[in-house]
Amino acid sequence: MTGRVICAGLGPGDPDLMSVRTDRLVRGARHVAYFRKKGRAGQARTIVEGMLAPGAVEHAMEYPVTTEIAVEDPEYNRLLAAFYDDWADRLCALAGGGAEVVVLCEGDPFFYGSFMHLHERLKGRCPVEIVPGITGMSGCWTATGRPITWGDDVLTVLMATMDEDALARALARTDAAVVMKIGRNLPKLRRALEMAGRLEDAWLVERGTMPGQTVQRLADFTGPAPYFSIAILHGEGRRP
Amino acid sequence: MTGRVICAGLGPGDPDLMSVRTDRLVRGARHVAYFRKKGRAGQARTIVEGMLAPGAVEHAMEYPVTTEIAVEDPEYNRLLAAFYDDWADRLCALAGGGAEVVVLCEGDPFFYGSFMHLHERLKGRCPVEIVPGITGMSGCWTATGRPITWGDDVLTVLMATMDEDALARALARTDAAVVMKIGRNLPKLRRALEMAGRLEDAWLVERGTMPGQTVQRLADFTGPAPYFSIAILHGEGRRP
Repeated sequence: MTGRVICAGLGPGDPDLMSVRTDRLVRGARHVAYFRKKGRAGQARTIVEGMLAPGAVEHAMEYPVTTEIAVEDPEYNRLLAAFYDDWADRLCALAGGGAEVVVLCEGDPFFYGSFMHLHERLKGRCPVEIVPGITGMSGCWTATGRPITWGDDVLTVLMATMDEDALARALARTDAAVVMKIGRNLPKLRRALEMAGRLEDAWLVERGTMPGQTVQRLADFTGPAPYFSIAILHGEGRRP
Repeated sequence: MTGRVICAGLGPGDPDLMSVRTDRLVRGARHVAYFRKKGRAGQARTIVEGMLAPGAVEHAMEYPVTTEIAVEDPEYNRLLAAFYDDWADRLCALAGGGAEVVVLCEGDPFFYGSFMHLHERLKGRCPVEIVPGITGMSGCWTATGRPITWGDDVLTVLMATMDEDALARALARTDAAVVMKIGRNLPKLRRALEMAGRLEDAWLVERGTMPGQTVQRLADFTGPAPYFSIAILHGEGRRP
């Protein structure tokens, strides 16, 4: 008897926006696993609040480190690799014992998701399945009330962690853009947008599709941006 | 009494991958509208087969032209603009009479969707709402069994309708890429991938998440590519 590991994309945050398949998996799961920062409820777990079956076993996969060590530090890599190795072993053991384990993942699992690191370690060892989800960026551009792309527009997805000049060049030559991982990189992103001549067109969306959602012009934004805020530059392509 | 127009993103094709919200809207709708090519069932309508309520009124919005006239021909623009004007008036009239009209849209409505052209014409005239969906590209990269992006990878979404040199340059400088609107542009896309030195890494996905789905190396692909096939270049970014 072999179980399996299913990573279920939860979508952008509003539980009504998860897929019918994910909704069914979450409600029926006997084993549920999710990532979180130590001491926090965790965004994925928060989204499914009130949906889990009575008696469902929860496996909180707590990151050994998030922002305490720089990403470039070899120690960061070593700690995270050991963490993923360990959880891959544990999920495999559960599946080997016949269990179906549903791993909750915000957004779309194969789009910058943490589950990918488990997937690399699980494949070939136990059956693994991925259920795609609505991306966080899609929730955010929908929140702006305007299409992100028209006709033959080019869309570029960028991380604000990138080098400032590279960011500015990429922003200058694309039609539409989405910028993620903003947080403390907001001042850098603002400078890159200005260099690219596009600061006036940029929007900042916080908590897209969730309670407390805000949509504002990035140029007007003051104060710290949460890590999960997303910047949007709309395309202006062909339209009849 | 005022109704409204709700555009419901259907996701990549598998009905199980539409959102809980879209599923509920589709099953409960009294008025359902969808785009299609004249003489065809239409992809959106096909996805919801068996889901509509008895007695639901169907509004098939048939494009006056699809590929019979070149996109650059002013006549193409004139015909499509008149078509969208007409349907905006009709949907507005229905909403004005108190009806809730659910417009079906493959993928994610604000991501290269046709509904955007109605949205431009409806806003300010009647209440309009958008329900995001899982994009077709997300269904396709999930079908390849490998993540599209890792760490700080840049993702570029391109249309194969673009100029060959521009396509090659964009493919050369991005980490991950998605190319849509392939169809008769496949030979051009193949040349652009070769120029960019990336032909060997490219995958072609047809009918992602739908019956008859295929995933193959683009270099090995022979025969005509359907318009809705999508090419995928996976990112290879940072991973612990």
